[in-house]
Amino acid sequence: MTLWNQVTIIGTGLIGGSLGLALKQRDLAGRIVGVGHRQSTLDEALFRSAADEVTLDPCEGVRGSDLVVLATAIGLFEGILRKIAGVLEPGAVVIDVGSTKARVLGTLEPLMPEGCTFVGCHPIAGSEKRGITHARPDLFDGATCVVTPTGRTPADVLVRVVTTWQELGMVVRQVSPEVHDRLLAQTSHLPHIVASVLVRAVSEEAEPLMGPGWADTTRVAGGDAALWRDIMLSNAEEIAAAIERFHDILADVRDAVRNSDADAIEAHLAEAKRRRDHLAQR
Amino acid sequence: MTLWNQVTIIGTGLIGGSLGLALKQRDLAGRIVGVGHRQSTLDEALFRSAADEVTLDPCEGVRGSDLVVLATAIGLFEGILRKIAGVLEPGAVVIDVGSTKARVLGTLEPLMPEGCTFVGCHPIAGSEKRGITHARPDLFDGATCVVTPTGRTPADVLVRVVTTWQELGMVVRQVSPEVHDRLLAQTSHLPHIVASVLVRAVSEEAEPLMGPGWADTTRVAGGDAALWRDIMLSNAEEIAAAIERFHDILADVRDAVRNSDADAIEAHLAEAKRRRDHLAQR
Repeated sequence: MTLWNQVTIIGTGLIGGSLGLALKQRDLAGRIVGVGHRQSTLDEALFRSAADEVTLDPCEGVRGSDLVVLATAIGLFEGILRKIAGVLEPGAVVIDVGSTKARVLGTLEPLMPEGCTFVGCHPIAGSEKRGITHARPDLFDGATCVVTPTGRTPADVLVRVVTTWQELGMVVRQVSPEVHDRLLAQTSHLPHIVASVLVRAVSEEAEPLMGPGWADTTRVAGGDAALWRDIMLSNAEEIAAAIERFHDILADVRDAVRNSDADAIEAHLAEAKRRRDHLAQR
Repeated sequence: MTLWNQVTIIGTGLIGGSLGLALKQRDLAGRIVGVGHRQSTLDEALFRSAADEVTLDPCEGVRGSDLVVLATAIGLFEGILRKIAGVLEPGAVVIDVGSTKARVLGTLEPLMPEGCTFVGCHPIAGSEKRGITHARPDLFDGATCVVTPTGRTPADVLVRVVTTWQELGMVVRQVSPEVHDRLLAQTSHLPHIVASVLVRAVSEEAEPLMGPGWADTTRVAGGDAALWRDIMLSNAEEIAAAIERFHDILADVRDAVRNSDADAIEAHLAEAKRRRDHLAQR
């Protein structure tokens, strides 16, 4: 089922590349154009059939497309949209795949030309691995995609965007940009910060004694620093609030450990295990 | 190469069961006796050939053994050793596989009968999964084992114990019980606490929006609560110190996020990524 005549994906990394592969595999787009800032990445995207054609020029890339996907680091969205806004096709839809939404919407929606629509999207997929070389068509399969409509989003456009993610096998949830950011601060941004702090809390002397648990717990800290810096900056208030909440619980646990309060320690660990086991089954 | 005539493993769960399988596979023990407190677990150990014979009675189990392995939760070690101390064979060696060492050594070494030796061991292997059903002979292969000799440890006994772990494919490191506990507080106990707090810091509303990063970061929180309570209690001071160190770095990061200090955020994330990538290559 072809939903879009031509899709332009700006940023053909892990997410953008996987999206190209997935759209083609499910035959959802007549044609896919990849836009990047390095020819080598674009060549790789062509080689892997994640795009039908590629260009280094975003304005050239969006010509003729009814869907444009921003799949770069979120810090680059505004500059890109300012560049392409004037050459978007009438009625074109622009979506993103970024990890924060309120600021992105607040900045990008006003830049959209009359008749074109921006819809915020966040497919919760991927890993600390980056780049087109890790792209795969099943990256989105079974995962959740958050779509954040606003008062400016026409219903028919929203339906087409939601249907697109669903056709890729995703479970779509619709919430406001603000709610998205509050919840993702807890489920994604806080864990990233905690993992990065854990890495730095290990003394060099202790390094040889790290086991499989440490590797799991810190894995996300291997993510790209500039990409995550942008995420932190664009959701700073909610992340600071999530850190406070985390800190309050940690302080209670520290006190229980200090006081060798066996009941309090076990109650905390048992509650965490109960919730973790419950959530792991979802 | 048979290193021991008969090995008794008290506690045939993930670690004890895997140890039985590994010792048999490499032919390091003439015979293996499994001791447990549930007949069904012992039957499973026999069925999987993790032991040649089994018994519910630790005193019966250690008769004739030149090596006894304590592989239960560490909270049970003292009670078990008090029971079996009087019936240990002359010259028998007792080792444990627990996650903390100073308290364990301080309690168990004085209980050992003249001529017998206790050697603290900590194979850093396993996962949040428990029980004989997850046991496998290659669990220790390539992993690190910490051995913590004291002034009471005869050199020849130490060599036999170290050789045993090495024959199972482990990299053996020897440190004092106190150093072990300080380092493991950072690499294992702190990550466990942080993961458990992260689980509890997620509101129920946010639960549907958890991605693969959250799953990795919190995986160890699925570990058994009573087992980890004992670990926390037996290394409380070092764990509290590790939490403090973690907290200080977290407070700096929180301030950087609150102040939208892009340089400080990126510097932190880049340093964490550098160390994580470096350590992941070990």
